[in-house]
Amino acid sequence: MIKTGIVGGTGYTGVELLRLLAAHPAADLAVITSRGEKGLPVSQLFPNLRGRVDLAFVEPDDAVLKTCDVVFFATPNGTAMKSVPMLLEAGVKVIDLAADFRLRRVEDWEQWYGMPHTCPELLAEAVYGLPEVNREAIRTARLVANPGCYPTAVQLGFLPLLQAGVVDPCSLIADVKSGVSGAGRKAEVGILLCEAGDNFKAYGVPGHRHLPEIRQGLAAIADSAVNLVFVPHLTPMIRGIHATLYATLTHPDADLQTLFEHRYATEPFVDVLPPKSHPETRSVRGANQCRMAVHRPQNGKTVVVLSVIDNLVKGAAGQAVQNMNLMFDLPEMTGLGQIALLP
Amino acid sequence: MIKTGIVGGTGYTGVELLRLLAAHPAADLAVITSRGEKGLPVSQLFPNLRGRVDLAFVEPDDAVLKTCDVVFFATPNGTAMKSVPMLLEAGVKVIDLAADFRLRRVEDWEQWYGMPHTCPELLAEAVYGLPEVNREAIRTARLVANPGCYPTAVQLGFLPLLQAGVVDPCSLIADVKSGVSGAGRKAEVGILLCEAGDNFKAYGVPGHRHLPEIRQGLAAIADSAVNLVFVPHLTPMIRGIHATLYATLTHPDADLQTLFEHRYATEPFVDVLPPKSHPETRSVRGANQCRMAVHRPQNGKTVVVLSVIDNLVKGAAGQAVQNMNLMFDLPEMTGLGQIALLP
Amino acid sequence: MIKTGIVGGTGYTGVELLRLLAAHPAADLAVITSRGEKGLPVSQLFPNLRGRVDLAFVEPDDAVLKTCDVVFFATPNGTAMKSVPMLLEAGVKVIDLAADFRLRRVEDWEQWYGMPHTCPELLAEAVYGLPEVNREAIRTARLVANPGCYPTAVQLGFLPLLQAGVVDPCSLIADVKSGVSGAGRKAEVGILLCEAGDNFKAYGVPGHRHLPEIRQGLAAIADSAVNLVFVPHLTPMIRGIHATLYATLTHPDADLQTLFEHRYATEPFVDVLPPKSHPETRSVRGANQCRMAVHRPQNGKTVVVLSVIDNLVKGAAGQAVQNMNLMFDLPEMTGLGQIALLP
Amino acid sequence: MIKTGIVGGTGYTGVELLRLLAAHPAADLAVITSRGEKGLPVSQLFPNLRGRVDLAFVEPDDAVLKTCDVVFFATPNGTAMKSVPMLLEAGVKVIDLAADFRLRRVEDWEQWYGMPHTCPELLAEAVYGLPEVNREAIRTARLVANPGCYPTAVQLGFLPLLQAGVVDPCSLIADVKSGVSGAGRKAEVGILLCEAGDNFKAYGVPGHRHLPEIRQGLAAIADSAVNLVFVPHLTPMIRGIHATLYATLTHPDADLQTLFEHRYATEPFVDVLPPKSHPETRSVRGANQCRMAVHRPQNGKTVVVLSVIDNLVKGAAGQAVQNMNLMFDLPEMTGLGQIALLP
Repeated sequence: MIKTGIVGGTGYTGVELLRLLAAHPAADLAVITSRGEKGLPVSQLFPNLRGRVDLAFVEPDDAVLKTCDVVFFATPNGTAMKSVPMLLEAGVKVIDLAADFRLRRVEDWEQWYGMPHTCPELLAEAVYGLPEVNREAIRTARLVANPGCYPTAVQLGFLPLLQAGVVDPCSLIADVKSGVSGAGRKAEVGILLCEAGDNFKAYGVPGHRHLPEIRQGLAAIADSAVNLVFVPHLTPMIRGIHATLYATLTHPDADLQTLFEHRYATEPFVDVLPPKSHPETRSVRGANQCRMAVHRPQNGKTVVVLSVIDNLVKGAAGQAVQNMNLMFDLPEMTGLGQIALLP
Repeated sequence: MIKTGIVGGTGYTGVELLRLLAAHPAADLAVITSRGEKGLPVSQLFPNLRGRVDLAFVEPDDAVLKTCDVVFFATPNGTAMKSVPMLLEAGVKVIDLAADFRLRRVEDWEQWYGMPHTCPELLAEAVYGLPEVNREAIRTARLVANPGCYPTAVQLGFLPLLQAGVVDPCSLIADVKSGVSGAGRKAEVGILLCEAGDNFKAYGVPGHRHLPEIRQGLAAIADSAVNLVFVPHLTPMIRGIHATLYATLTHPDADLQTLFEHRYATEPFVDVLPPKSHPETRSVRGANQCRMAVHRPQNGKTVVVLSVIDNLVKGAAGQAVQNMNLMFDLPEMTGLGQIALLP
Repeated sequence: MIKTGIVGGTGYTGVELLRLLAAHPAADLAVITSRGEKGLPVSQLFPNLRGRVDLAFVEPDDAVLKTCDVVFFATPNGTAMKSVPMLLEAGVKVIDLAADFRLRRVEDWEQWYGMPHTCPELLAEAVYGLPEVNREAIRTARLVANPGCYPTAVQLGFLPLLQAGVVDPCSLIADVKSGVSGAGRKAEVGILLCEAGDNFKAYGVPGHRHLPEIRQGLAAIADSAVNLVFVPHLTPMIRGIHATLYATLTHPDADLQTLFEHRYATEPFVDVLPPKSHPETRSVRGANQCRMAVHRPQNGKTVVVLSVIDNLVKGAAGQAVQNMNLMFDLPEMTGLGQIALLP
Repeated sequence: MIKTGIVGGTGYTGVELLRLLAAHPAADLAVITSRGEKGLPVSQLFPNLRGRVDLAFVEPDDAVLKTCDVVFFATPNGTAMKSVPMLLEAGVKVIDLAADFRLRRVEDWEQWYGMPHTCPELLAEAVYGLPEVNREAIRTARLVANPGCYPTAVQLGFLPLLQAGVVDPCSLIADVKSGVSGAGRKAEVGILLCEAGDNFKAYGVPGHRHLPEIRQGLAAIADSAVNLVFVPHLTPMIRGIHATLYATLTHPDADLQTLFEHRYATEPFVDVLPPKSHPETRSVRGANQCRMAVHRPQNGKTVVVLSVIDNLVKGAAGQAVQNMNLMFDLPEMTGLGQIALLP
């Protein structure tokens, strides 16, 4: 059994990690920390876990975390970087679900996250945890930077096009819609049911923190500079991301459907739908899946890719467990067989 | 492996049965029928099942169904009764998720369902599939009448009070709220998002078909006549039932919390919350659970029980699988370990 | 023109008051205060008011408020009582949308609201602003205590029964469901879209602050002590309250439909539906209306009344404007002709 | 008073027309027809109209319609064209809320709508009812083709850019999200609360009927051919359209904010928000408003316009009333002063 710890488990990625790890046949959930809720039984905060998780939140404690085989950070940005060096030193593997190790250039990180990075020397070592791109590196990583939710949906959608070189990498537009759980479990007026419900809006159009992460990932995939317009939106539902992606075709005779099907033929968690399909977010609700479809409207110069994930699963906790499986040499699908809840 | 068939799998109880049986370690999903959708791959209608269920819908066919160990009917009322005698004859066990075998008195059934019953002789044999009441009878049943969603939530909530004889059985009120999936997957204006969304209403106050079913069950539990006012409501959410139950205390010194905890201490799927709790429907979303709390406001003469289930799981497909487990002598929790999806 | 001021206009009752007063032909919106948002244009916080309300929030200032003809308090409980004596002294009429003047007995108020009352001498003078009960007193009042949302829906529903004396006043049960806007525009986790959405729960069953207010109102109507069980619930929608009311009939031959129709025949804002109806909350969304229906299921001993309002209109801001109209001798419907938004 | 008739008033544009006309000071609602619901009081189908609309639906009857000053068609496509010639002949003005007269070229119409056009000679006369483009022509029109909901949001957003000639007209992308009421009040499984709720998806990517309408309008505005990719999506809310529009700048030094503000400075129903704004659909819920913002992310080559309307008001019934006001020489805002309902 893999002894696992979770730092900061009171948010939505935290409870989702708990749901997945509690049912994982090879994981032993040893400790979960929270400064604010220490002493509180986990199942009191999250009643869906009653009878399944008996732990209580404890004060973060290095000594205990050091006894784990792997520690997940489900903390605000800037928290993991303070403890990670100590854990790696102690031989503990780390999967950070926040952004601390996602960007390679420390200047970029400090600009977008507005604070100094306390262990920039680890940025080069950290492996970006998108298994469809970095599977082999993840297997041997000590430190995995789990991708953001938007970046997962966007990168998986553009990946076949950029790898095959059939679109102009300077023509990319990502119009992405997220359920409200992407904003976290925070006491903020803007995500109240009465504010975000029965309402639709864009936000962060001038610049969103996931932009540099996506751009970095796409540039690595394309092996060239890319130009990306990224417009996130808030849609009145709980879970799910729908990315609608646009790119200008440079090879108009490319067989796009075949391209996508071949690229993902052996991927356990990416599902390419038949031609003319429209994936729905609910088809992945609660499941570690990305489903997508590729279109070329009116046979024109623009490719349209539709890509959906559950932001809390393939966009966060599920992908983290997928990474753990790889890091501990388990079958990649272990504990990730949940079928999406529909309706 | 248990060879299972599903008749009429295009509704919400059908897709939920498929979700549960596809992940059940002892069930082999052999056939699923639908007149309207024959030939259609199941995963095309329900994309959450892509990669998990490879069957296509087939025309109902007695010869095939007779080769099953158990057949589930997820059909409109009045359909199962036409095939059940033939299947029992062939040695196939049957679990009917519709209402055909729920009422003991054929007069009641014909009055409430508005059609003649074609095999009234089976009404006495059919076992009402509420394991918390009829577990032993279910184990040996050939034919199980799976309870309705409202009746499950209401009976489990009143059960400890009536069995202990601490309330007046003629004082019962069940004010119950259902998510819209309880109305099924039917093309009807009243359950459109634009009609049922952002809206709340009662319906069926003059008389709802679940009334005689609940009354029959409560009378059996109380071993006396009962008087029940039953008011169902439609609430703008997909899954979930919340029953708010009222009864007049006849034994004011009863320790209600202890009564409930003792009654359900060994029940794997009923969870009594601590005093002063308010169960949420989302705490059972997708899970085969009933969670409940008991209150006595202002220490008055009225007991208030709050009881929640997922209408498609403990209120339909999950309970059906629980019954299958009992009928085939499997551990009762087999294949029913899903943790509720929260948020 | 009536010069109106609003104290504390950043919540949902505040923006609703603004919507109604901005379109009111006899009201001149002179000042709106907010400590937290002073300087902010109102239409920046509430973009629906762009082009319709040009005011900015200002620091609360007695001198300015004293120049108004009427001041509305849309503040947290305990705020209005600090300024009301000064305003009355200055000849300004006051309508308090919070609870400061709703209870007659200061002991009750201090028990349920957990703070000392600073002007208990005004509790006797304050008129409870339910026009269907207190119309004449409101016309001449200096200080109106605008009813709570639950109390409005519940009292209007029980009123014909209690006034006619056809039910046992000690048998009352109010099972009430509220949209989330009833909880206000506050940064609280429990009312996030991801917590309150797609979910249903009861709350406050051991005791809710609206209980003494309702009990006091019903006792006055019945002219006798009443016994009331009050169970509020949160339903995943924005606006609307649905009260399901139960009482034991003492006069089984009462013609309930006629009783209700007669009682409300001349009320401009109460609509009694035909027999066997089920009012929907959306039928009053955005409108100053209460719609109701009365049932007697299975011709039994229990009367069931269904009563719906928009909690922000007839349950708050609309009723406040109705009271203002009465206090300033305007036709009662002035500025309250909005038709409910459906769908 | 203008004597008005409505043909086909049982859908959502019908009930919204009724809401607006019932409160319009110069309109006399004389007749409303429906084959399916003849005899039914309008307020029984739409209880929000109880006490405000006393009409019942009647069988369509040319003689009665001919006595009207104006007739609105809120019918399925292909219905209005059968009666319009007769009405025009009789001197009745017509506003068609369906698509019968929106496309200029009969070949386009017959291709996209799949039926022969019965009065193609009227296509040239019909005026496209987008007042911000065609105000003067509308004033003198006998027959107005009221624009579709998507076309209104998209054309108003691109209009300033194309008229000023600052973007490449062959680079246009419209990623548009609609609430479910845009699909109408029809008994269809796909728009049930349990299908469309808590879900997000694109649809019609290979080709949607609003594409030729938008393309025709934009080409007229740009006075050149345009190339447009149009991707509609369904978002889980009732009312509202959010258009996210992309175009490639050809004049990088254009002052976009000023361009938009100038273009719409005198438009009563178009509101340009300050720089860096993100309009919300709820800010126009129930109101005849379009609100928009213009962005240039990272100061790059792509302009992003965000444009929101209520699909049933500025996208249908409200715009129809605006057109009626113009056709009858009334002040354009008459009867259209509703403030959006927020929350």
